[in-house]
Amino acid sequence: MRSTERDGAGPSVLGRVIAVLDAFDTTTGCIAISELGRRTGLPKSTVHRLVGELISHGFLERDDAGVRLGLRLFELGQLVPRQRHLRDIAAPYMADLREATRHTVHLAMLDGTEVLYVNISHGPDSPKLPSRVGGRLPAHATGVGKAILAFSPQAVIDRVLQKELVRLSPRTIVAPGLLLQQLEAIRRRGVAFDNEESSLGTVCAASPVFGPEGEVVAALSVTGWSNRANLQRLGPAVHTAALGITRSLRSLGQLAPR
Amino acid sequence: MRSTERDGAGPSVLGRVIAVLDAFDTTTGCIAISELGRRTGLPKSTVHRLVGELISHGFLERDDAGVRLGLRLFELGQLVPRQRHLRDIAAPYMADLREATRHTVHLAMLDGTEVLYVNISHGPDSPKLPSRVGGRLPAHATGVGKAILAFSPQAVIDRVLQKELVRLSPRTIVAPGLLLQQLEAIRRRGVAFDNEESSLGTVCAASPVFGPEGEVVAALSVTGWSNRANLQRLGPAVHTAALGITRSLRSLGQLAPR
Repeated sequence: MRSTERDGAGPSVLGRVIAVLDAFDTTTGCIAISELGRRTGLPKSTVHRLVGELISHGFLERDDAGVRLGLRLFELGQLVPRQRHLRDIAAPYMADLREATRHTVHLAMLDGTEVLYVNISHGPDSPKLPSRVGGRLPAHATGVGKAILAFSPQAVIDRVLQKELVRLSPRTIVAPGLLLQQLEAIRRRGVAFDNEESSLGTVCAASPVFGPEGEVVAALSVTGWSNRANLQRLGPAVHTAALGITRSLRSLGQLAPR
Repeated sequence: MRSTERDGAGPSVLGRVIAVLDAFDTTTGCIAISELGRRTGLPKSTVHRLVGELISHGFLERDDAGVRLGLRLFELGQLVPRQRHLRDIAAPYMADLREATRHTVHLAMLDGTEVLYVNISHGPDSPKLPSRVGGRLPAHATGVGKAILAFSPQAVIDRVLQKELVRLSPRTIVAPGLLLQQLEAIRRRGVAFDNEESSLGTVCAASPVFGPEGEVVAALSVTGWSNRANLQRLGPAVHTAALGITRSLRSLGQLAPR
């Protein structure tokens, strides 16, 4: 939960609003008003007033059992330019890659030391995965994350190495030296592999996507069962699709929304 | 632009925050702070303070030319339960329908008198369309809208008829009597057709999706070129996929997030 503390005055109004919105997560669709008070630590009267205002703006919706996040937030979120432009350009490439491989295709951006999934196209032959659109995973533990890190400025890699490399599976790379070696190989190859590093039983091949100025902006991946997917075969496919997105971003560079 | 007016005191803090966020639309990726002041009518100092706070929470991001909506809004929007649950369940059916027809597949919900597009899977053989994820169109002028209205309570249909039926194309149905006749036919058939009603040159077949209690919650559609797509052939395909989503929603009814 984030909040803006002011000297002695407690959270600002905006801080309180954000505390209310942040009380919702993937596991809680609907929250009772009393529970919202407990989660945010705000007085009951404040919660009541903020909830009323948020409902009137469509940011929250009333439900039998309390309130839930409102469709207006979904609409607003879809306008966010950094993901919208990329997602629109990548959509046909993602669809083709899914059709050609029958595997699940991910599009992700780096945010801090984590990857944020911008779009997912589920393949008919793919396993159930821990990713979801709008969800995050530690960059070092995923194919898309390693593909982006390999082509990121040193400061970005340093930020990842300064934190503990958390373990998502027994195969997650948690040794900084090993991670740096892999990033070097990914730079040479243009493709990153995830060998059951984000979750046991699944593997992926990922490739970076570059913006008009040559800076890495995202990565694309294809994920399948570890005992069925052939990464040597999937590598060129995902690499080709990522190059296509890069080319489209470059040719649309001048038209892109700022 | 929405804002909450209080007796004599002007917009509340939340109203001002929402005025700032509402200043962004599909055409404006990035706005200069001075322009933000003009668009919201708020004093410069207020805009500066709110923008600073919104940036610190990730709701806005700084850009060379000003500020833009931040990734945190995209993340929050993805959590909105009404669209998330539906989109997750519908995803594999949408992908199959796109693969089987090679046309663009839409998933939309009704919000007031408009449809809100929750997900779109672009087909390789499809025309450029006026729809986008998170975008809206008037319900009466679209296949998905008519499919939902046909199975909605009378009060919902009345709300649509109380407003002027705006024209999106020369073929949009703008006569209330004709719309009611069509809704009756859609109820019998289980499929709605859009014959160049939302835009000239494109046609679509749409079918309603029902929730666990039998209430209509969304509609699915397949869109193609008017001179190439065969609606008689596409009707059963989209109907079948919509029935599949309905069945999945019903069987997952007890597990659904509230």
